[in-house]
Amino acid sequence: MSDTTCHAEHHGYISNKEDLLKRLRRIEGQARGIQRMVEDEKYCIDILTQVSAMTSALRSVALGLLDDHMNHCVVNAVAVGGNEADMKLKEVSDAIARLVRS
Amino acid sequence: MSDTTCHAEHHGYISNKEDLLKRLRRIEGQARGIQRMVEDEKYCIDILTQVSAMTSALRSVALGLLDDHMNHCVVNAVAVGGNEADMKLKEVSDAIARLVRS
Amino acid sequence: MSDTTCHAEHHGYISNKEDLLKRLRRIEGQARGIQRMVEDEKYCIDILTQVSAMTSALRSVALGLLDDHMNHCVVNAVAVGGNEADMKLKEVSDAIARLVRS
Amino acid sequence: MSDTTCHAEHHGYISNKEDLLKRLRRIEGQARGIQRMVEDEKYCIDILTQVSAMTSALRSVALGLLDDHMNHCVVNAVAVGGNEADMKLKEVSDAIARLVRS
Repeated sequence: MSDTTCHAEHHGYISNKEDLLKRLRRIEGQARGIQRMVEDEKYCIDILTQVSAMTSALRSVALGLLDDHMNHCVVNAVAVGGNEADMKLKEVSDAIARLVRS
Repeated sequence: MSDTTCHAEHHGYISNKEDLLKRLRRIEGQARGIQRMVEDEKYCIDILTQVSAMTSALRSVALGLLDDHMNHCVVNAVAVGGNEADMKLKEVSDAIARLVRS
Repeated sequence: MSDTTCHAEHHGYISNKEDLLKRLRRIEGQARGIQRMVEDEKYCIDILTQVSAMTSALRSVALGLLDDHMNHCVVNAVAVGGNEADMKLKEVSDAIARLVRS
Repeated sequence: MSDTTCHAEHHGYISNKEDLLKRLRRIEGQARGIQRMVEDEKYCIDILTQVSAMTSALRSVALGLLDDHMNHCVVNAVAVGGNEADMKLKEVSDAIARLVRS
C-alpha cells in the first residue's frame, strides 16, 4: 500500500532489529499475562496497572521506530528532494499525529 | 499487594469476560503481526500504523476494565463507606492517572 | 445541559478552589507566553517544549477535577442509588474516555 | 539554550503565523473560560469537557509546529548534513517523545 522504496533500498534500516523484536516479544508476553489475569479474575486495578505498563512499552517501541524512520528514510528522501521528500514528510507527520492521538 | 476483597466477593465482576478475552487475544495477535512485519522489514510507516492501532485497542480495553471496576468494586465500597471507600477511591484515581499518562 | 444537582447540592465541592484557580491562571499565562514566543519567532523546539509543559499542567488539572467529582458527586449519587447512580457512573466513564483520548 | 540557528536563518519559518496566533489566543480564551466555570462552580463534568477540548486544541497546535519545524529546520539541517543534521534529528526525536508523553 505505502511506498516501499525506503525499506527496499535500505534493507536493515531498523537500527537494532534483535532488540526491537525482543521488546515486541515481551509486549506479546504482557498481552498473554493480562489474559491470564482476566481468566483468573485478578483484581481489576492490578490488571489495569499491567495494561498501562504495556501501553508505555508500546509507546517506546513506536518512538524507536519513528527515530529509525526519520534517520534513514526521511533523511534519504530529503537528500533526493522534490516530491519524494514532500511525500515522506507528509507521511511521517501523519504517523506522528496518529501516534499522539492513539 | 492490592486489596483483593472485590474480586473475591464479586466473582464474575468482569461484565463480559469472553468479550474481553477475545479483545485481548486480538491484541496479542497484533503484537505477533508487528513482529512479523519487523522480521520482514516492512515499511516503518506501516508498522507504526499497526502500533497505533494496537495502542488504541489497549486504551479501549483499559476503559472497559475501568468501567467494570467503577460499577462494581467502587460502588460496593462506597455503599460500605468509611476507610474502605476512601481507599478504593484513591486507588481508582491513581489507576486513572497512570492510564492518562501511559 | 448536564445534570446540575451535584454542584447545587454540594456547593464548594471543589476541594481547593483557590489552588485550582491559581493553576488555571498559570496555564493561561503559559498560553500567553507561547504566543509571545511565536510572535518573536523563537526556536520551534523551545515552543514545543512549552506546549508539552502546558499540556501536562492541563492533564494534572483534569485529574484533580476528576478526583473531586468522584469523591463528591459520584459518591453521593451512589449513596442515593438507582438511576441517578447509573447516570453519574456513565457520565464519569465518558469523561474519563474523553480525557484519555484528548 | 537550544540552537537558534534555524529561526535566525529562516525568519518566517512558521508557515502561517497569524493562524497559529489565532489558535493560541483561542486556547488562552479557553483557559479563562475554565477559570470562570470554576469560579461559578459549574458542574465538574462540564468543566472536564472543556479541559479535554483545550487539551485537543493544544495537541493540534503542537502537531502544526512540529510540521513546520520538520519541513524547514530539519530539512535544512539534513541538506547541510553532518553533526548539524544529527543534532537536529535527535532534538526533534526528543520533542516528539515529550509530546507523546505529555
